[in-house]
Amino acid sequence: MNNDTRHLVVEIERLRADLLTMGRLAEERLREAMDSLVHRNLEALRAVIGGDARMDRVHVEIDHQCFTLLALQQPVATDLRTVVAALKIATDLERVADLAVNIAEAGLRYLHHPPVKPLIDLPRMATLAMKMLSEAIDAFVRRDLGLAHGVLRQDDWLDGLKGQIFRETLTFMLSEPRRIEPATDLILISRHLERVGDHATNIAEDVIFMVSGRDVRHGSHRLAPEDTGERRRSTPTPIV
Amino acid sequence: MNNDTRHLVVEIERLRADLLTMGRLAEERLREAMDSLVHRNLEALRAVIGGDARMDRVHVEIDHQCFTLLALQQPVATDLRTVVAALKIATDLERVADLAVNIAEAGLRYLHHPPVKPLIDLPRMATLAMKMLSEAIDAFVRRDLGLAHGVLRQDDWLDGLKGQIFRETLTFMLSEPRRIEPATDLILISRHLERVGDHATNIAEDVIFMVSGRDVRHGSHRLAPEDTGERRRSTPTPIV
Repeated sequence: MNNDTRHLVVEIERLRADLLTMGRLAEERLREAMDSLVHRNLEALRAVIGGDARMDRVHVEIDHQCFTLLALQQPVATDLRTVVAALKIATDLERVADLAVNIAEAGLRYLHHPPVKPLIDLPRMATLAMKMLSEAIDAFVRRDLGLAHGVLRQDDWLDGLKGQIFRETLTFMLSEPRRIEPATDLILISRHLERVGDHATNIAEDVIFMVSGRDVRHGSHRLAPEDTGERRRSTPTPIV
Repeated sequence: MNNDTRHLVVEIERLRADLLTMGRLAEERLREAMDSLVHRNLEALRAVIGGDARMDRVHVEIDHQCFTLLALQQPVATDLRTVVAALKIATDLERVADLAVNIAEAGLRYLHHPPVKPLIDLPRMATLAMKMLSEAIDAFVRRDLGLAHGVLRQDDWLDGLKGQIFRETLTFMLSEPRRIEPATDLILISRHLERVGDHATNIAEDVIFMVSGRDVRHGSHRLAPEDTGERRRSTPTPIV
């Protein structure tokens, strides 16, 4: 392994570690938003809305690393796909943190009213969405195709939970029209959680492309242009 | 200009043209969804939900072009930022097309009921969201910083319209509880349109980074690592 290759390996490991950190921060924000909603903690919800400077810093740092890697190391094949996946995944994680803010905002409005009903399905949906997110990030870090495919399969369950919450909340609104306002916020929160699941799905698809060179979006199953059977970073090809 | 440089220029022009095509297709789908909703055209809504093979094809093609460019041409500085921006923008446009499907789905549910009220603010919101999207794509194609900054400014108006629709629809639901179900779908459609605006904003931010090397997210204003005063593609630097 020459110096350049070793440097690239080190840089890509650092990228992986930073994405893991960013993922954990995004999950933390989401958990904070949901826990604060369930425990009716206004102060903590406001803290989530205030944003997270660490998260922003890590995101800028990851983008910076990716551009530097692309410009200076000019990676190819799996390494190239890893760097591009990292750029996309960081964007998805930033959106997840934005969704935590959206949840906290709807949560704050919701808490201005007496409780609509015990919150059971929504925390369940949040748990599933966070599990998908966490597994998608682990799939990236470990380059684990099975884990990534598992994330894709869970999206239907999340969708089912969302539909159930929508129907139940509508029924509730019809029977208690005075409570329409807070109930609407519960529906909006379920939509935000659905989107967390969408981002986990995006990440899983990026991981599948990164590891296998196969594009599983649009059912196209197209191979990466630079994928010529090569699978592991430890056997770099000189070009494509 | 040597052969390699000329080849890169041609490839990047092609990328720009393809992104413009993808942008127009996304706008078309959105317009189709909103027009069909306003004119209560169930058949046309179902066609939107059916998806668009052209859109999928162009997206896969753009990703393919970007990876080939990165692997074979190893662009630096502005060119590198253009290719990475193209990858991100294509993802945003794909999500916009998904949102057109979400709008059509909510529209179909909505049309199962008698009209709630004349749809005025929602089409207005759609017009603004599509204008932002169209300007963001033009900003990418023309590398126009002013246009990109203009898109960022319009996001507040879109947010204002969304808030207005939310308040009006809640008031309506409180006075006409029997109509809660279709009214909820109007709120969801306004949220989908808000997200179209979010994607236009993302694209505008990518354009600003691409042209100026400045990261305007998170108020960080960090310069691109490879940005060393060089601004135009016609004066490539050998490395960074």
